[in-house]
Amino acid sequence: MNSHPALIASHVLENLRVKRPLVLCLTNSVVQNFTANLLLAVGAVPVMLNHAEEIEDLMHNDTNALLINVGTLHENQAHIMRQAAQIAAAESIPWVLDPVAVGLLRFRTRVCAELIATPPAMIRGNASEILTLAGNTTAGRGPESSADSTDALAAAVSLACNTSSTVLVTGATDYMTDGHTIVCCTNGHELMTRVTGMGCAMGALAAACTAVASSPLHAAIATAAIMGVCGDIATTHTSRPGSLVPAILDALDELSPATLQDRALLRYLPHPR
Amino acid sequence: MNSHPALIASHVLENLRVKRPLVLCLTNSVVQNFTANLLLAVGAVPVMLNHAEEIEDLMHNDTNALLINVGTLHENQAHIMRQAAQIAAAESIPWVLDPVAVGLLRFRTRVCAELIATPPAMIRGNASEILTLAGNTTAGRGPESSADSTDALAAAVSLACNTSSTVLVTGATDYMTDGHTIVCCTNGHELMTRVTGMGCAMGALAAACTAVASSPLHAAIATAAIMGVCGDIATTHTSRPGSLVPAILDALDELSPATLQDRALLRYLPHPR
Amino acid sequence: MNSHPALIASHVLENLRVKRPLVLCLTNSVVQNFTANLLLAVGAVPVMLNHAEEIEDLMHNDTNALLINVGTLHENQAHIMRQAAQIAAAESIPWVLDPVAVGLLRFRTRVCAELIATPPAMIRGNASEILTLAGNTTAGRGPESSADSTDALAAAVSLACNTSSTVLVTGATDYMTDGHTIVCCTNGHELMTRVTGMGCAMGALAAACTAVASSPLHAAIATAAIMGVCGDIATTHTSRPGSLVPAILDALDELSPATLQDRALLRYLPHPR
Repeated sequence: MNSHPALIASHVLENLRVKRPLVLCLTNSVVQNFTANLLLAVGAVPVMLNHAEEIEDLMHNDTNALLINVGTLHENQAHIMRQAAQIAAAESIPWVLDPVAVGLLRFRTRVCAELIATPPAMIRGNASEILTLAGNTTAGRGPESSADSTDALAAAVSLACNTSSTVLVTGATDYMTDGHTIVCCTNGHELMTRVTGMGCAMGALAAACTAVASSPLHAAIATAAIMGVCGDIATTHTSRPGSLVPAILDALDELSPATLQDRALLRYLPHPR
Repeated sequence: MNSHPALIASHVLENLRVKRPLVLCLTNSVVQNFTANLLLAVGAVPVMLNHAEEIEDLMHNDTNALLINVGTLHENQAHIMRQAAQIAAAESIPWVLDPVAVGLLRFRTRVCAELIATPPAMIRGNASEILTLAGNTTAGRGPESSADSTDALAAAVSLACNTSSTVLVTGATDYMTDGHTIVCCTNGHELMTRVTGMGCAMGALAAACTAVASSPLHAAIATAAIMGVCGDIATTHTSRPGSLVPAILDALDELSPATLQDRALLRYLPHPR
Repeated sequence: MNSHPALIASHVLENLRVKRPLVLCLTNSVVQNFTANLLLAVGAVPVMLNHAEEIEDLMHNDTNALLINVGTLHENQAHIMRQAAQIAAAESIPWVLDPVAVGLLRFRTRVCAELIATPPAMIRGNASEILTLAGNTTAGRGPESSADSTDALAAAVSLACNTSSTVLVTGATDYMTDGHTIVCCTNGHELMTRVTGMGCAMGALAAACTAVASSPLHAAIATAAIMGVCGDIATTHTSRPGSLVPAILDALDELSPATLQDRALLRYLPHPR
């Protein structure tokens, strides 16, 4: 009854290229440049802003999706993010939450709990972040934590059900679920964890995909496949993290929907219950 | 009566290399790293600061040019920028305004209007930004807007006359005018629009050039030619946006005044009236 | 009686790879991305934060070293840095001060003077920064100042004695001293000064090394050798600054302790008195 997920991913990529969604990125200061370049490479339009009135102006006019990433959160930014999430809800702009390092750091943990009350279309996190948001108590090891994504699958399903958000858990295997359907993606390469902002930029790509996909689950499927396949392609050209940065951006630019469909390692999983 | 613009550009580049101007960059958070690397590659010295007293200390001592770029403006930065523009006027330090995404976003539109009252040596913008500053009402599409630069030529001339600033409109063709003379540059490549901060870094290069050129118009001519020729050279090495970043910086480092003069596609245009 | 410094450097690198220290980087906005990528490439775990409570949460749990770099200092950041230095002292977390452009800019000069009262394990600076901190009055030329590191050797020894910090003066030759022993390193290449944040990222690497070395002097020796040897290797692949960025990161990832020991140009110097 469901389309093959590789076909879904390829349709979303096609739409990205045609519609060039404008993505407002409220993100951390470490990854802004890479995030903007990744969105441009894939065909989307990034905007980064820092002022409440400007965010209002943009969101009332021309914003197709919103990313909220709490990686270097401070008081003013938290204030701006709360406001942006409210406008997104009022204007039906899909938004993605990237709850970087939630858990150990209490301030962002409180802010993420508040933000989720205005449900995002998607939550993208690593295993420990998703476990934390689903109510498990874990101690993460900063944003580079690499607990096994498989451990977080049940938590992802329960988080999706409780928030009515789609959840994308990224790791060696990526899992996507809207609480009912579960899809996994096994593309990608360990070297990608050796470059800062790879996961954060994936959150931005997820936001771009929500703007053009027919559902957040489809957006999550496309996000995992696009990043994973581009990681596969880039690591055929280099095995080192410095050259991976330009190689990934080049691969995102070059990737055709046909190649994506061909190389995506996606499949449906049975529901855990 | 006028020198050939390619000769002008080549003299400015020669001076950049010898004088190594220190450029204080008050710019947006997305492009700081690329901007600093671009200035270093071409032979200038970038400094980024964030504190009013420190800006005063630097500008009273050792600053050859100032860039003000409003890409991720917030209240504190606006305050610092107003102060820096005042000091620049008092100390006769040339400064360049990069009015990113002015128009739709009301806060920066107000701040840019105030800043222009202390006239910059140069205003660098894309077509929609220059149209907005010249009083035309347009709705830009964030900083990546790509309205045709030719549409903004008359607006550029009128803005130059009204502000006594030189105006540099960048696009497929770049236009430079002090309100009297008009020069265009057709170097460069569409791929440059696929990298974040290419235009913003061009604003920083413009500031560096104002420090060593005999007039802001000469600085604008050199800016457009240097960026355009390096874009031409870099795109002979790559057709993808990720590898364009190191390729452009390498080209800026390698570019000789003779090559610039040889490859610059610059010409005078008749005045529109 | 002392081990050969190349052997020391190689042991520190081995420990970095095994222990993967988490380094909290309170650093300037221009170099955050490059700093994070450099730490990841060498095997450490970078975290950047911006909020007092979050810094407290992280430092009370999982932080192995702290970097404080004042490159784009503002009031809030100064407040956070003072607090972090206090926690570091209380929790015996080694920390490194990178006093970028101290001297001419009075605000950071005052803040650095305060910070040094809680002595860092290491101070990393260029010649003019170390001369300033040691009490000599000089006028630096922004962060890109390149006064000769040899001129600062006596100042480095006196600063080390007065603060009981190890001092690492970087330049064409790097000097490391704890006030008693002096080591110099002649690896590295002038091209490294043409990329922004090379010195700042070296400060972050120094912090990572303090977490795993048996003394701050050993950490300083390893820092200079790792950066210098990777500079040597990277400049065999490129002579241009744009491609140096990925090349340096690739070299840091590839560098083995054996290669480091083999290529490090380190030697003990007689004490100046």
